[in-house]
Amino acid sequence: MKTFAVTVLGSGAAIPLLHRNPSAQLINIHEKLYLMDCAEGTQLQLRKNRVRFQRINHIFISHLHGDHYYGLFGLITTLHLLGRTNELYLFAHAKLKDIIDKQLEASNTVLRYPLKFVAIDPDKHEVILENEFVTVESFPLNHNFPVNGYLFREKRSKPNIKKDFLEQKSISHEDLQRIKNGEDYTDDQGEIYSNDEITVAAPPPRSYAYCSDTAYHEPLIPVVRDVDLLYHEATFMDDKAQDAADKYHSTARQAAMIASKANVKKLMIGHYSARYKTLMPMLEEAQEVFKETMLADDGKVILIPNS
Amino acid sequence: MKTFAVTVLGSGAAIPLLHRNPSAQLINIHEKLYLMDCAEGTQLQLRKNRVRFQRINHIFISHLHGDHYYGLFGLITTLHLLGRTNELYLFAHAKLKDIIDKQLEASNTVLRYPLKFVAIDPDKHEVILENEFVTVESFPLNHNFPVNGYLFREKRSKPNIKKDFLEQKSISHEDLQRIKNGEDYTDDQGEIYSNDEITVAAPPPRSYAYCSDTAYHEPLIPVVRDVDLLYHEATFMDDKAQDAADKYHSTARQAAMIASKANVKKLMIGHYSARYKTLMPMLEEAQEVFKETMLADDGKVILIPNS
Repeated sequence: MKTFAVTVLGSGAAIPLLHRNPSAQLINIHEKLYLMDCAEGTQLQLRKNRVRFQRINHIFISHLHGDHYYGLFGLITTLHLLGRTNELYLFAHAKLKDIIDKQLEASNTVLRYPLKFVAIDPDKHEVILENEFVTVESFPLNHNFPVNGYLFREKRSKPNIKKDFLEQKSISHEDLQRIKNGEDYTDDQGEIYSNDEITVAAPPPRSYAYCSDTAYHEPLIPVVRDVDLLYHEATFMDDKAQDAADKYHSTARQAAMIASKANVKKLMIGHYSARYKTLMPMLEEAQEVFKETMLADDGKVILIPNS
Repeated sequence: MKTFAVTVLGSGAAIPLLHRNPSAQLINIHEKLYLMDCAEGTQLQLRKNRVRFQRINHIFISHLHGDHYYGLFGLITTLHLLGRTNELYLFAHAKLKDIIDKQLEASNTVLRYPLKFVAIDPDKHEVILENEFVTVESFPLNHNFPVNGYLFREKRSKPNIKKDFLEQKSISHEDLQRIKNGEDYTDDQGEIYSNDEITVAAPPPRSYAYCSDTAYHEPLIPVVRDVDLLYHEATFMDDKAQDAADKYHSTARQAAMIASKANVKKLMIGHYSARYKTLMPMLEEAQEVFKETMLADDGKVILIPNS
């Protein structure tokens, strides 16, 4: 099975705690690493989780509140100091570029590697990255501020050719590719094997959606429908539903309602307000609505299996 | 004894390590807290050392390399989120103001407290702050970049009136102040007590100098002469003296030479390159030249006693 995994590097909200960093996650899709948000301290969280910094080639920032990006400057600088030469792609609101440029200029730093900045349009739902393994979409959330969610969809793999067929026949590389692309196969004797007969469909592609920070927002439902894993913020519980509404954040119950209505497989909640000292009540509140809910926690790794 | 203490919050150089944060120190003078540099993660270091953030009213940044200031944005934001209303003074190179303003603007943040920015002239040695307890001077260091050191001098306290004299006489508040200001005292019978006879001089004022980052720089010697504690960077050892020179950093031996020539009481070295896995050789190198050397280490508290 090819890897599709999410490592939580920070599960807290804006006030940093000793046991809970602000937002950051590492997404591993087929051993390519994507960093999602980068709060202060993310470098150390990467170290704690033994991630080699230079394997990260893409960073996505959901929005320009500090608890989602204040660790970016340190990481950009460390990659430079450690001798990086590979391109680094940074997806974020356009205003971030100016801030980074100002800081590099203030420290007389010319990065040794190309930092490719891709400005995200906060009002659009669109594909922002596509490669051999994945497409990444950005889409608007509903905060008191421009915020994007991101959706990672694994590419559908080509079918696998059945083992017993491979063992019987000596098939050229070109023919293998043709079969994988859906063609039938004709052997030396002219016998035709239908593609269905000699291949097994690859497992369905997996998907992950990241939604932080947002109020309860029903337009999200069609966007994240049927994903394997939905991360949805749950800054508050029902007891602070008014605070949640006022601050354009969600309660645990609201996150679960989105998960339920969107028919996702699993929900992970996080971005907990520092006021909540224990999180079991929060989990229980969400599970009342959507049973397949789990809590984000720093260092937690969620493997998304093939179904 | 009134407190004069330095708490090391970060003792490493630019590459952050799990056990050693980049530069930050907390200086406590008569229970007023001054933050010196503010690398990424300083908020958590303050938490680990159980410092109440809001007690800090003055922050000094030595220079605009990230390992000395990337934690500032998070701290400024946290103070805001925690409801600060008191003024916060920030002393730094003028370019920092623009960076902070850009970030606050990008997050639509209007701080609830006045952030009083004081631009430091990197070429001048001058007093930048004076209050009831302390004067603070900034002075140029010799890096490949504008960098300031800072020097904290405790104000000389007024003399103490001898206990037995206080017990014998009933002295008015006004007379007490006069005696503390150096006047003689005449009692109801007209007997004159000379000021020398009835007072004990307060202990000599204490001082602390912070010098990071800098090459070996003899013009520092008169600036830090006779201080009680000198912090001087020691990024390298003799084995990398050429690297130190090329990068405008110091070796442990060079830090000790400055300490010795300036006749300071104690030297603390820090800002160690991540290449050094054990620091005893570095300490030994410095102690060959200046015996009263100690190593900075995250969480270490140095009390400066009255002599």
